[in-house]
Amino acid sequence: MTDKIILKKEEGRLNITFNNPDKKNALTSDMYSLASNEINKAESDLSVSVIILSGSGGNFSSGNDLFDFINDPYNPSVINFLESISSSSLPIAAAVNGVAVGIGATMLLHCDFVYSSPDTYFSFPFIDLGLVPEAAASLLLPKLVGHKKASELLMLGKPFYSEEALEMGFISKICPEKDLLDEVNNLANLLTTKPRESLCLTKKLLCTEEESVTDRMAREHQKFRDLLGTKNTQNIINAILNKKKNK
Amino acid sequence: MTDKIILKKEEGRLNITFNNPDKKNALTSDMYSLASNEINKAESDLSVSVIILSGSGGNFSSGNDLFDFINDPYNPSVINFLESISSSSLPIAAAVNGVAVGIGATMLLHCDFVYSSPDTYFSFPFIDLGLVPEAAASLLLPKLVGHKKASELLMLGKPFYSEEALEMGFISKICPEKDLLDEVNNLANLLTTKPRESLCLTKKLLCTEEESVTDRMAREHQKFRDLLGTKNTQNIINAILNKKKNK
Amino acid sequence: MTDKIILKKEEGRLNITFNNPDKKNALTSDMYSLASNEINKAESDLSVSVIILSGSGGNFSSGNDLFDFINDPYNPSVINFLESISSSSLPIAAAVNGVAVGIGATMLLHCDFVYSSPDTYFSFPFIDLGLVPEAAASLLLPKLVGHKKASELLMLGKPFYSEEALEMGFISKICPEKDLLDEVNNLANLLTTKPRESLCLTKKLLCTEEESVTDRMAREHQKFRDLLGTKNTQNIINAILNKKKNK
Repeated sequence: MTDKIILKKEEGRLNITFNNPDKKNALTSDMYSLASNEINKAESDLSVSVIILSGSGGNFSSGNDLFDFINDPYNPSVINFLESISSSSLPIAAAVNGVAVGIGATMLLHCDFVYSSPDTYFSFPFIDLGLVPEAAASLLLPKLVGHKKASELLMLGKPFYSEEALEMGFISKICPEKDLLDEVNNLANLLTTKPRESLCLTKKLLCTEEESVTDRMAREHQKFRDLLGTKNTQNIINAILNKKKNK
Repeated sequence: MTDKIILKKEEGRLNITFNNPDKKNALTSDMYSLASNEINKAESDLSVSVIILSGSGGNFSSGNDLFDFINDPYNPSVINFLESISSSSLPIAAAVNGVAVGIGATMLLHCDFVYSSPDTYFSFPFIDLGLVPEAAASLLLPKLVGHKKASELLMLGKPFYSEEALEMGFISKICPEKDLLDEVNNLANLLTTKPRESLCLTKKLLCTEEESVTDRMAREHQKFRDLLGTKNTQNIINAILNKKKNK
Repeated sequence: MTDKIILKKEEGRLNITFNNPDKKNALTSDMYSLASNEINKAESDLSVSVIILSGSGGNFSSGNDLFDFINDPYNPSVINFLESISSSSLPIAAAVNGVAVGIGATMLLHCDFVYSSPDTYFSFPFIDLGLVPEAAASLLLPKLVGHKKASELLMLGKPFYSEEALEMGFISKICPEKDLLDEVNNLANLLTTKPRESLCLTKKLLCTEEESVTDRMAREHQKFRDLLGTKNTQNIINAILNKKKNK
């Protein structure tokens, strides 16, 4: 039996690949459990700075396995998976091609960087299945693209492609399919060069939305001061000042 | 006396037309009361799936009747009308042409789909009247178009046209004036083909903004599971699976 | 000793100019204290309707003085300055050229109008200093430009220029450098012609984000009704009605 989730860890990157290519990487309970388990473990693994999601066989994911919807509708693994990616303090990058449908599209709202190939097909077909959006798409999509656009995508179930996705800010960048994984790995390598604590704190701040400006400023300031007092940060700033002096 | 609000109900659509053409459909207390009454009634009317707002005589609405501002400034009908459109669980589409000024523009923030003709003139002239924005425009407009753009529109009272409105996400689509009502009716017909409960729940989710990601995911998930357990949804999914099997 | 903050008050405008040109207007504790003091005082000064921020010598600001980060890291003047601009009820306009880095960029999130010259260099280099974003940038930037774009700017520390800044809604307008201050002063003059109470209330509403639609509508409505009852507003509306009658 082939592994439906392929894991690879190297140079600070944890690669998680959905591997159910016959069903365009439809996601089953087992796959959610495996993936969320790895994402949760990475939290305390100092050798990991970035998580990368991708799919094998030319597609990202066609969404939840429909047989699971019929046979095992109340399995908690989906919500556990969504919790693990939405609460991760590590930056998450996605390499998306082929189809990104249902949870294959909504999980991208919880990624910090999404690179996709030009022909990627995105859709949120929940309403046509008699369902509602999940993964906080009903909250995050209007924040990202505005209420009018989100209504089209979620109430009409209208599909869209990479160019429209980029324009509305749903993805970060369009890459030729042959370079897609390389470009995402390069991005991830760049992230691994950043001070890890700064990176994780910044990521967490970016993902917390419900807060007043004053409270947020106070919370940022606390982290800012803590970091400013560390040897690491003092060394970085002193190095910059010395460089300026010697110019 | 002509009716200042024209009502038409057919094929799942409730059409509400502002009909005060001599004053470019300026809105009076009576008109607000009539409209909000119908919108509230539609909530429990299972024969209605979509509400359509439009104006007669070539304009959408020139805003609140200024005589009412002088003669009857504290009438609660305005806020009741705004409450009814902002709290409706039915999708609301608007067909907008001519002028959309003051509440004629701010009510569009509570519509899910806004189609407008190319020459439509939009403005929020509250500040030049010595007033402040209403209809939660001070909250919803910055969310939709960003703080800088909202400042221009609300602090300077700068008018704008359909092209700019589309670019900033304030409207959904520009249609030639002669096709405007047809296109909105077509959109509404499409919405009436969607499972009504999914549609209303999705609409409500899209209009609730103050919530954490975790809370929203949990709430979506509850509705998702409830719907997944219904015969209707099971039938839809089984039909898709059978179609796949027989391919 | 030259003043590191230059103040000029005329015709309803308070101009605050950062004046530390040898260090591209790097900001020191003294400069923050002076500036926030003036911003706070303007709050109750009815002769001031608009605050204008700018820098001398061809730059806006290169950010916090790095020596201060080393020698005086826990000085409360930064957070006091940020509080004063984020809580001001007066509209704030900025004229930005040269470099706008660190707090020189994040403070712009609290300005209502930002005009910048074409070649202005913006960046949020916090992560590369081993720090986190401040000034509620981790909250306000994702709201303004979306999560994906904010991740690029804050996690990668990627710099950007005026054209990209305008496209993402971070600034209001690009002006040729030679006209920059004139254009901002013209904008400020226009703002001083607006009813001052309407202006300040509108500004405050635009800057309060955490609220339900219903609560916001109620709060706006209260202010709206209060203003509608004033002689000033009644006079404005009567003048418009008389003009219409006499047409």
